[in-house]
Amino acid sequence: MAENIGAAIGVFDSGVGGLTVVRALRRALPAEALVYLGDTARLPYGNKSPETVRRYSRLNVDFLLGRGVKLVLIACNTASAVALPALADELSVPVLGAVEPGARAAARASQSRRVGVIGTLGTVRSGAYVRALHAIDDSLAVVQHPCPLLVPLAEEGWTDDAVTVTIAERYLTELRALDPDVDTLVLGCTHYPILKPALARAAEHVFGRTLTLVDSADAMAAEAAAILGQRHALATGTGTLDCFVTDHARITELGPRFLGEDPGPVGVIDL
Amino acid sequence: MAENIGAAIGVFDSGVGGLTVVRALRRALPAEALVYLGDTARLPYGNKSPETVRRYSRLNVDFLLGRGVKLVLIACNTASAVALPALADELSVPVLGAVEPGARAAARASQSRRVGVIGTLGTVRSGAYVRALHAIDDSLAVVQHPCPLLVPLAEEGWTDDAVTVTIAERYLTELRALDPDVDTLVLGCTHYPILKPALARAAEHVFGRTLTLVDSADAMAAEAAAILGQRHALATGTGTLDCFVTDHARITELGPRFLGEDPGPVGVIDL
Repeated sequence: MAENIGAAIGVFDSGVGGLTVVRALRRALPAEALVYLGDTARLPYGNKSPETVRRYSRLNVDFLLGRGVKLVLIACNTASAVALPALADELSVPVLGAVEPGARAAARASQSRRVGVIGTLGTVRSGAYVRALHAIDDSLAVVQHPCPLLVPLAEEGWTDDAVTVTIAERYLTELRALDPDVDTLVLGCTHYPILKPALARAAEHVFGRTLTLVDSADAMAAEAAAILGQRHALATGTGTLDCFVTDHARITELGPRFLGEDPGPVGVIDL
Repeated sequence: MAENIGAAIGVFDSGVGGLTVVRALRRALPAEALVYLGDTARLPYGNKSPETVRRYSRLNVDFLLGRGVKLVLIACNTASAVALPALADELSVPVLGAVEPGARAAARASQSRRVGVIGTLGTVRSGAYVRALHAIDDSLAVVQHPCPLLVPLAEEGWTDDAVTVTIAERYLTELRALDPDVDTLVLGCTHYPILKPALARAAEHVFGRTLTLVDSADAMAAEAAAILGQRHALATGTGTLDCFVTDHARITELGPRFLGEDPGPVGVIDL
């Protein structure tokens, strides 16, 4: 692997939410070159069928491989849930999804051994977090609930807002009806980290206590560092970031919100 | 045109919202064969760039033309706003968008000559309703405001719901700040008709009086009847409906909500 040290880490998502993963990577691995692809022309993936999501994921990975990446991160929970197994089999570089790192972090965090998962319709229907958590510890009790309005609320910028808290409370009330004793909540969508304050308040109201909120961005960054370290492929230079989208319409407005900094010039490509 | 009497009317939308137009067509033109295409694999169009929306619209029209349609209705406001002029120039069959019929109905309805328009980001940014209303009467005062959360609220089924009223009130308060004297509100998105009760309540709260809500589905159906009548191409048989989508994930759940009846077997195609 030594010849790959200078190669970039490739990250793709259905949109701009995956920039929360890039933000975590830049903190954890500041020397790495990063290539980000947001498939903004075809977002969201969360309400599309597995076949469609697999087809789009393949196109995204082909683009990243064309840029010579040494590791692929699937920042999209939906794509991780439905496309990772096939991609991991086929690619010559390692592939890391969003589901397993988040599941491992939740399994470590839960004291009550009762975990809740929230995500898009596609992620919840796939059952990927339930399977991943049970693969780690089959005695874990897992409940999940889809929250389709949270992505548009995050993109609208109503991040710490009374309406967002009200809607989150409604979703979490439905989750609590499934299991009132969960102590850990997996934010199973890359958009959700920027809603953390609203979700924490809603969880406190609904459960009457503080839940541990797990987002997979930090967990993915930590596991990416471990994989590259094990393969002696950690970069030593100055980190860079190249961002690409398939539609430019909202990247200027949304990019800084999810990345936490200006993404610089963003390339627009047609897949 | 006489040889086209038996041909179908083709309708496309970015998703299932355009089934509100099909519902209006089935009421107004019960003898017609209808072909509906929802590009559910690539929805929503509202936050995508004009180039992308034009590319997808072309593919949708090619599918409908392949089924021999005598008239194309673009039920998607975003696609009507950005793709209609180019398509109307190129096609050998008439094309009707969602914008002009809605604008004409609003211009007829307004007493105060002050009209408000709500829609997706893409529709509002395109300025299509403002242009269409001014083309009818350039003394009309027109204000508009994007409402990105209304589509996911409609799809979530929270149609006549306190949260939806609260969110609509926030959007309409921002619209009212632009012009407190509008008396007519154009629902510039095919999803919005099923939110009419919530929008009416929110408008009453915000403006302190009843606004006339104009949705373009009925207006499109009336104009489709006029076009076909003028061309002597009105069908006389028993109406039929063939529905197609590019992704099957949510059609079973959402189809009846927007169509008002069971859509029957839905074909899944890859464009």
